Amino acid sequence: MRIALDAMGTDAAPATEVEGALRALKELDEDIEIVLVGDPDLLEAELARHDDVPRERLSVHPARERVLAGDPPATVLRRKPDSSIAVGLRLQKEGHADAFISAGSTGAVMAASLFVLRPLPGFERPSVGTFFPTARTPTLLLDAGTNVDCKPRHLLQFAHLGRVYMADVLGVDEPRIGLLNIGEEPEKGDELAQETHRLLAADPALNFVGNIEGREVVKGACDVLVADGFVGNVLLKFYESVAQFILGMVRRELKDADQVLPLESVMRLLDYSEYGGAPLLGVNGVTIICHGGSPPKAIRNAVRVAAQAVRSGMVADMAAEFGEGAPNGSMA
Amino acid sequence: MRIALDAMGTDAAPATEVEGALRALKELDEDIEIVLVGDPDLLEAELARHDDVPRERLSVHPARERVLAGDPPATVLRRKPDSSIAVGLRLQKEGHADAFISAGSTGAVMAASLFVLRPLPGFERPSVGTFFPTARTPTLLLDAGTNVDCKPRHLLQFAHLGRVYMADVLGVDEPRIGLLNIGEEPEKGDELAQETHRLLAADPALNFVGNIEGREVVKGACDVLVADGFVGNVLLKFYESVAQFILGMVRRELKDADQVLPLESVMRLLDYSEYGGAPLLGVNGVTIICHGGSPPKAIRNAVRVAAQAVRSGMVADMAAEFGEGAPNGSMA
Repeated sequence: MRIALDAMGTDAAPATEVEGALRALKELDEDIEIVLVGDPDLLEAELARHDDVPRERLSVHPARERVLAGDPPATVLRRKPDSSIAVGLRLQKEGHADAFISAGSTGAVMAASLFVLRPLPGFERPSVGTFFPTARTPTLLLDAGTNVDCKPRHLLQFAHLGRVYMADVLGVDEPRIGLLNIGEEPEKGDELAQETHRLLAADPALNFVGNIEGREVVKGACDVLVADGFVGNVLLKFYESVAQFILGMVRRELKDADQVLPLESVMRLLDYSEYGGAPLLGVNGVTIICHGGSPPKAIRNAVRVAAQAVRSGMVADMAAEFGEGAPNGSMA
Repeated sequence: MRIALDAMGTDAAPATEVEGALRALKELDEDIEIVLVGDPDLLEAELARHDDVPRERLSVHPARERVLAGDPPATVLRRKPDSSIAVGLRLQKEGHADAFISAGSTGAVMAASLFVLRPLPGFERPSVGTFFPTARTPTLLLDAGTNVDCKPRHLLQFAHLGRVYMADVLGVDEPRIGLLNIGEEPEKGDELAQETHRLLAADPALNFVGNIEGREVVKGACDVLVADGFVGNVLLKFYESVAQFILGMVRRELKDADQVLPLESVMRLLDYSEYGGAPLLGVNGVTIICHGGSPPKAIRNAVRVAAQAVRSGMVADMAAEFGEGAPNGSMA
């Protein structure tokens, strides 16, 4: 399989992308090929710094433009048609690549992916999933900020996207689907939560475990946590900052170097780069979005995730999720 | 001033309430009198265990019934008219007390307070405020779960309640009002956040500092954080659990007893009992709600907060907050 990697996305592009790609090729399955998409001069210069570049599995595809942080996402395809994001996505659309990875502007990658790859039938609002570290296995949060003012049927669609992703990419059979809410009982919550609870509970394809309160999230009470993107985004940003806040306080108390060291394993659990990026789910293709500050390890892990999505047939499984007819609850 | 204290509310009632009241009388201002409301036999037996009870400042008012956790809040006044909650609130309503404190069922205390004390004009949805520990001074979150499916004008009213509370009870001049949102710019967020931003920004009585993202909350970016009760409640419960989760991981890493000790100061920062309970704001009276698991210190601190609310004329200031006319934005 061939994975298109936007080589101009990270804060330290293209060095980070090149090193991440080389690590992926060395450490992951041999059927993976990577196409570095970006400025060919910069990329060749960067590749020249490395020995033993496996050229038969690593190629360069030129893209003369680069999307900058200030570029409005909605118009980026029209204004920068030769950007590494646009070119990489077209490689996938035209069958020259099976997946696309970028650490560029999240908004631009999303908007361009929606336009080039198109949403899958039955999924009105493609959604970026994000992983929450928990006391058990990580929980996939859908939606994490892409979609606000959601209707109950959108949250039902997020549940199906999460179900297929967890089963295909993470190998979790019958993933536990939870609904973020302010109480355990079905009748708790706002109108959106109450109606969504009804839809989720009535769907025989979902292993719905009920409402998940704020305090249950870090216990790992579900594999997929469904929420409107407003509360999901607030929670996501809050999590990162609380973890840093508490560890900062602990560190001030433990001034001794010997005592600081053990915190590393805590930091590792909270390190997003372990999770291999955030998948954009509900489009007709594979797009993995990485942090702009990603280290090479995160790029390598994103390649691993993208390869698993391709290998498992994730997109075809999502397209088949609602069968021939309309999704359950599409009238909601 | 006289404060009515529900003596039957905590998990260890009435011992906790009696000890908390005695500490308050000993440590706080001498103009404070406390009326213990509850089963007189139990209370006299408990008081007999203590020496030097200042009877001229501590009295017992009988209430023969007790609200249990399973009692439906909406009907508790009708079904248990002689409960310590009902009796204590009527003491305030009839002028025999200036404030009411309870660690009983939050729902029952709220519902009974609304019915007995009545909402203040201009405040359609009284709200329980809760404090978030931050890197600076604690932030008052309004709403923390009482009110879901809020309209923009309700959030504007929460901002005014928070403004008066922080100014009168905590002595914060011109408290910084923030709106919980998913981006800094005014146009970010869902429909509720966008319209609320317009109302807050247009109100000359408020020191509105703009949108507060999830990651800014623990930095102490505002004194009053305004949010719909759904997201507020999710955030509140999540905060407590994340803090425990991270500290639990740290503790596992630091097995040595010498190393565990310094964590105490971190725990203290996160200890709700320091904050003296959650005020119910927007009713024509003073109600402070404590955790069922409160220790005597939390009861003592709730007396301090209630006394300051009375002394500052908080209720009159809230009643005057919107002047003679309707509140700004009441058409929203």
